[in-house]
Amino acid sequence: MNRYRLTLEYDGRPFMGWQRQHHGPSVQSALEDAVFAITGERTTVHAAGRTDAGVHALAMVAHFDVERDLAPFRMHEALNARLRPAPVAVLACALAPGFHARFDCVRRRYRYHIANRRADLTWQHGLAWRISQPLDTDAMHAAARHLRGRHDFTTFRSMACQAESPVRTLDRLDVVRSGNDIHIHAEARSFLHHQVRSMVGCLKFVGTGQWSEADLVAALAARDRQALALNAPPDGLWFMGADY
Amino acid sequence: MNRYRLTLEYDGRPFMGWQRQHHGPSVQSALEDAVFAITGERTTVHAAGRTDAGVHALAMVAHFDVERDLAPFRMHEALNARLRPAPVAVLACALAPGFHARFDCVRRRYRYHIANRRADLTWQHGLAWRISQPLDTDAMHAAARHLRGRHDFTTFRSMACQAESPVRTLDRLDVVRSGNDIHIHAEARSFLHHQVRSMVGCLKFVGTGQWSEADLVAALAARDRQALALNAPPDGLWFMGADY
Repeated sequence: MNRYRLTLEYDGRPFMGWQRQHHGPSVQSALEDAVFAITGERTTVHAAGRTDAGVHALAMVAHFDVERDLAPFRMHEALNARLRPAPVAVLACALAPGFHARFDCVRRRYRYHIANRRADLTWQHGLAWRISQPLDTDAMHAAARHLRGRHDFTTFRSMACQAESPVRTLDRLDVVRSGNDIHIHAEARSFLHHQVRSMVGCLKFVGTGQWSEADLVAALAARDRQALALNAPPDGLWFMGADY
Repeated sequence: MNRYRLTLEYDGRPFMGWQRQHHGPSVQSALEDAVFAITGERTTVHAAGRTDAGVHALAMVAHFDVERDLAPFRMHEALNARLRPAPVAVLACALAPGFHARFDCVRRRYRYHIANRRADLTWQHGLAWRISQPLDTDAMHAAARHLRGRHDFTTFRSMACQAESPVRTLDRLDVVRSGNDIHIHAEARSFLHHQVRSMVGCLKFVGTGQWSEADLVAALAARDRQALALNAPPDGLWFMGADY
C-alpha cells in the first residue's frame, strides 16, 4: 500500500460538504472518484476536518491509500486533471507512510470572514457573511477572550455533534478588522461540530450590542444549545490549515 | 436635473463589459435599467473606466442624471435592491452637481492578479490569471520601470482603441509578490484600450525568461501592435479606484 498526503484547496459552494453523501456532490467523493479514475481502486480519503456544506478550504490536509505505485508528482498532476472542472485543487502531494490526516493532527486553523457593509456581495457571494449593521470589533475581540482556553462548549455544539466530550481547548480566537472586512481567527487541537460558526454567531451579537460580554459568558456557562445566539452561515468559514 | 455620483463594485464574469451591448448583459445596462425601474427615466450612466468583458471593479466611479429628486441614501438603497441578483453593488452614492466621472478623473488605478501555481483555481476561477511556469517577479519589476513615464504605447494598444493619441504617462507599474500571488499595480491619468493587459502580457514573458528586459524596451520602441508578446486575459484585471 502507498499512502499519499494531500494539501487541498476548495470552493465549498457547490458541495454538500466534505463527507460523501447520497444526495449530492461532496469534496470527498470528488477526490475518491478521481483516485478511482487514475488507479481503478476504491479508497477512502481522510481529511483533517470534515467541513460542512458551503465551507471552503485554503489548505485542507488529507490522505488516502492505494496499491498503485505512482510518483507523487504524477499522482498530483493526475488528480488535478481528473478533478476538473470541480473546484477542488491539489496544492501538494507526497508519499507519507504512517501519516494520518485526522488522528495525527495537533492543530486546526480556521478563519471566518465577515463583510461588514450594507451592499450585497458581488464576487464574494457565498465566500463571506455580509452583515449590514455596524459591528464593534473591539467589543467582539474583548469578549472573545472568555472563550479561549479549556471549556465545556456544549452551547457552541451542533445537536448532531458526535464527539464524546464537549470539552475543548481553544488556543486562539481573535477578531481583526481591516476596513469593512472582519476576520475571526480560531485555532484548536480540535473543534466540535459547528463550534466556530456558533462562536462567530455569538460574537456577532456582541458586535451589534444585542449581547454584552456578560451575556457571552453566561451562554458559555449555560452549557445548553438553547443559550446560543445564532449559528453563523457557512459562507464565511475557511479551513486555513492543519498542523502535525 | 439631479446628478448622482456612485462608487461601484462588480464581478465582471457574467458581463460583456461596462458598456451597453446588444448581444449580452453589461454593467452599464444593469445600472441604467435599475435607474429606470426607480425613476421611470432613461438615462446614461457614465463611468471613469469602460472595462472590458470579464474585468472586475472594487471601486469604479460613475455618475448619472435624473429629474427625480431622491435623497442619496434612498437612491443608494433602491439601486442595490433593483440591481439584485446582478453582481453589481453600489458602495456609495452622493449628489454631485457638475461632477463628471470620466472627464474629471485625474488618475485611474488598476491591479492585475496573477496566481503563480500549477493547480487550477477554485474559488478564484475567473478572478485571477493562473500561470503555471514559475515567474521571476524581480525581473518583471525591474523591467516594468521601462514602461513608466511618458511614452507612445502603440504596441500596448488594442487595434480597436479609439483614443486620438497613443501617448500616455504611466505613473506607476509595480510588480509585487506575496507567496504564489503576484499583484501588478498600474496607475495613470488615463489608459489606452487593453494597455494594462498588454503590459501584463509582456511582463509575463519577462517573468518566464522568454523575453529579456531589452526585448521589452524594443517592443515599446517598435510602436507596433505586432511587437506585442501577449494580451493578458481579462480575468485578473481589477479596477481599483479613480481619483478626482
